Amino acid sequence: MRRPQPMTSEEARELLGATLHGRPVLVRRLIDVQTVAGAGDDAVVVAPKLDAASWDRCKVAGVAAVVAPSEDVATLAPPSLAEPALWGVGDPRLALARLSRRLDPRPPAAEHGVHPSAVVADDALLGERVAVGPLAVVGANAELADDVIVGPGSVIGAGARIGPGSVLRERVVVADGVTVGARCVIQAGAVIGSDGFGYAVGPRGAERVHHLGTVVLGDDVDIGANTCVDRGTLGATVVGDRGKLDNLVQVAHNVRLGCDVLVAGQAGIAGSTVIGDRVVIGGAAGITDHVRVGNDAHIAGGAGVSKNVPAGEAWGGFPAQPVRRWIRERYLIGRLEKMWAHLKGRV
Amino acid sequence: MRRPQPMTSEEARELLGATLHGRPVLVRRLIDVQTVAGAGDDAVVVAPKLDAASWDRCKVAGVAAVVAPSEDVATLAPPSLAEPALWGVGDPRLALARLSRRLDPRPPAAEHGVHPSAVVADDALLGERVAVGPLAVVGANAELADDVIVGPGSVIGAGARIGPGSVLRERVVVADGVTVGARCVIQAGAVIGSDGFGYAVGPRGAERVHHLGTVVLGDDVDIGANTCVDRGTLGATVVGDRGKLDNLVQVAHNVRLGCDVLVAGQAGIAGSTVIGDRVVIGGAAGITDHVRVGNDAHIAGGAGVSKNVPAGEAWGGFPAQPVRRWIRERYLIGRLEKMWAHLKGRV
Amino acid sequence: MRRPQPMTSEEARELLGATLHGRPVLVRRLIDVQTVAGAGDDAVVVAPKLDAASWDRCKVAGVAAVVAPSEDVATLAPPSLAEPALWGVGDPRLALARLSRRLDPRPPAAEHGVHPSAVVADDALLGERVAVGPLAVVGANAELADDVIVGPGSVIGAGARIGPGSVLRERVVVADGVTVGARCVIQAGAVIGSDGFGYAVGPRGAERVHHLGTVVLGDDVDIGANTCVDRGTLGATVVGDRGKLDNLVQVAHNVRLGCDVLVAGQAGIAGSTVIGDRVVIGGAAGITDHVRVGNDAHIAGGAGVSKNVPAGEAWGGFPAQPVRRWIRERYLIGRLEKMWAHLKGRV
Repeated sequence: MRRPQPMTSEEARELLGATLHGRPVLVRRLIDVQTVAGAGDDAVVVAPKLDAASWDRCKVAGVAAVVAPSEDVATLAPPSLAEPALWGVGDPRLALARLSRRLDPRPPAAEHGVHPSAVVADDALLGERVAVGPLAVVGANAELADDVIVGPGSVIGAGARIGPGSVLRERVVVADGVTVGARCVIQAGAVIGSDGFGYAVGPRGAERVHHLGTVVLGDDVDIGANTCVDRGTLGATVVGDRGKLDNLVQVAHNVRLGCDVLVAGQAGIAGSTVIGDRVVIGGAAGITDHVRVGNDAHIAGGAGVSKNVPAGEAWGGFPAQPVRRWIRERYLIGRLEKMWAHLKGRV
Repeated sequence: MRRPQPMTSEEARELLGATLHGRPVLVRRLIDVQTVAGAGDDAVVVAPKLDAASWDRCKVAGVAAVVAPSEDVATLAPPSLAEPALWGVGDPRLALARLSRRLDPRPPAAEHGVHPSAVVADDALLGERVAVGPLAVVGANAELADDVIVGPGSVIGAGARIGPGSVLRERVVVADGVTVGARCVIQAGAVIGSDGFGYAVGPRGAERVHHLGTVVLGDDVDIGANTCVDRGTLGATVVGDRGKLDNLVQVAHNVRLGCDVLVAGQAGIAGSTVIGDRVVIGGAAGITDHVRVGNDAHIAGGAGVSKNVPAGEAWGGFPAQPVRRWIRERYLIGRLEKMWAHLKGRV
Repeated sequence: MRRPQPMTSEEARELLGATLHGRPVLVRRLIDVQTVAGAGDDAVVVAPKLDAASWDRCKVAGVAAVVAPSEDVATLAPPSLAEPALWGVGDPRLALARLSRRLDPRPPAAEHGVHPSAVVADDALLGERVAVGPLAVVGANAELADDVIVGPGSVIGAGARIGPGSVLRERVVVADGVTVGARCVIQAGAVIGSDGFGYAVGPRGAERVHHLGTVVLGDDVDIGANTCVDRGTLGATVVGDRGKLDNLVQVAHNVRLGCDVLVAGQAGIAGSTVIGDRVVIGGAAGITDHVRVGNDAHIAGGAGVSKNVPAGEAWGGFPAQPVRRWIRERYLIGRLEKMWAHLKGRV
């Protein structure tokens, strides 16, 4: 852990687009409104909403500043110079994202350069300010662009390419020939480029289809812990720009995710399925192979999608159907008791 | 493998609370009643129940001793000195647990000390009798208490703390700043302290919320292979004392599990959900974010919990509901054929 | 990546059982019919079906040869010596499997021998042409048969045995005493031989059952990325010959899979369940503990199996039932709207 550089009120105004009320302060730590007690005078609190009671708690705690929705700030008396500063923002969650980045005390890498215990192929290409952690492996002809960080124990295969600013946490695998875009973050244990699950039935049982394709992750893609993305059979499995995949997600061979797709934990997408832009897939949802999910569709958690989903629709249930129909179906099932009471003597 | 020290009948009496019948013996190996044939005279068998036929098989095999429920033992003639000893116990499963621990031939670590291939930061603090396996990494300021075992290829982040007697198997990740209690066992590939899945929507798409929080595992917590526990956003994700998590489980950011919680394989708990004490969660069950599951609740395998579950209730189904209602619903759906036969001409 | 040896038309005839039409060629690369444009004259295309339009595209691209179903080839004019060769086959998917193996440009290991950074126990036994990659660990008394490849960062426990020709990709764990058969392929991050999830309830809470058993993988078994196979309590967890498990699959302690079993991604099989030969288990399906699934049964994706499944049956749904009944149930639920419209004034 390091102590981040202190952040001024002025910087907050620029970073958050905040309207500042009260004294100028320096903040170094970001804390939760639930755990504000005893937080100290270098702490900034983000309150998703701020009523008089939680404002009082912040004052008692003596924090430096409180970030809250502008409309909540408008209901409070302007803070005195002895009270915490009040920073009104349009979207507290966005303020949380930006403050958390600014005040992150975890350095993404201990230091630049290649740790002496790492095994880096002679012909690997490393950009400026690259950090390769202890006991990591970088294969032949792999290319790590500027500012790439490879965490401890990670393995980068032959010919893989990692774009500028991307971070691989602990024990990540980026297999041979895989391409990772710029500014991606791959969590511990994720596997990008494992062989797809494909077989042909021969006279002596299953014969493995060797997977000669690859995986392409776009820019600003996040991959969760122990998530797996299989390589394509002959072409590429693709995760579009700004795709965010949670932990333990399965993306099978030849799948294509559009841009800005969100996939929650333990969801799975079977082979060759095509997911449009801005699709949101809930936790543990499963989508079968060779279907299409249109742009802006929402798949509810736990849903089992077995056919194409039109653009813009919200689907849920198992098997999945439009959410409105699923809700109606649940309603009708709830009426079964009455129907049966009426009919049971007659049928 | 090593050969465990032989165990006497007297030790069995103390360890198992067993009533001993027949000859005194020394046992070194624990075997299954199904595979008793040819087991040898240093083997002890645990029989969940023991009828005359399986007792005969044990005699033919010539095993040293048979552990069985006291009420089954009471139905058999006391063994002669030429026959296996009979040890009556109240709970054969508890006897299995204790014998399996006593006779485990797998040493938890080959030897104490830091393997020369491990990378341990100069300022890491290692207690007495700590073992750090080959190619493991221990980060700056990490603290390993007495008797901790770090398996091959595991990575412990900066400032992480591991309590006394805890065991990390192969390739475990305990990320920066995470706290692991005493006597925990973490299976291979598990990731404790990956970044949570949190984003804000900014003008140019999703902005990552950096996760400045941590994970706290209590004492006697077991974590399964390739299971993931994300760190909290600002506070801690918590697994209470004696929590037991199976393989491939997902615990999202800010979740709190009470004490004595059991979570079976592939279950998932979404962000900020609070699970009470002694809750049992079945395999592949999913629990949505920001709900509460009360003390002593049981969630059936495959259930999809989308709202609060009161203490002491058993819920199942998708979406989940009280098990009694779920069973009734399944019954009524089974009556649909008759209802439809009655109505189909009229509707 | 290496460039595979070029393959002649004659070799194709033998390998694929193909009927050759047109010129003799040399091929080095296998490409997809969708991405044929600009493929070059050393490429062979496999077309699951070939109509005149795709045949024209192949001609324009100037590929060396096109593999297509014999009946489709029969509908086309025989190719001139200026056109791609046409190779008619009975099963294009089987041709794909064999060509993909023949033309795989990824060498399974960079070179034979033990990488200097690997940690191999003095008493481990290594066969001929074994490759142990960078930063891999091979434990005491482990046995690696001829032609075994251990990928970077993999860990092989004490006394484990790996059969001839088997390949462990990156960061695989094969724990103490586990047996892997011949010609298996284990993908990155898989864990074979983690401790099973078993506890007894003692006076002071759960007591761990130490798992003294093992795992036995048969010959030609494939294991997916981040999949977990737990060791048996006292006996073995078994995956029979030619079993193929996809990514993120959970196989619990004491499970027995027969021969030729296919398990798709994220499926889970709970403790002591017995799966027959040639069973197919769909993605994310869950099978409860202590049940039997008969030979040749098919379990649909997402199914939740809570009881025995007879041989040869296809089951689906949650809870799972014979597929025919599941479809009928879904049909009847679809009639609820009409039934309710008819009854709602009366009940």
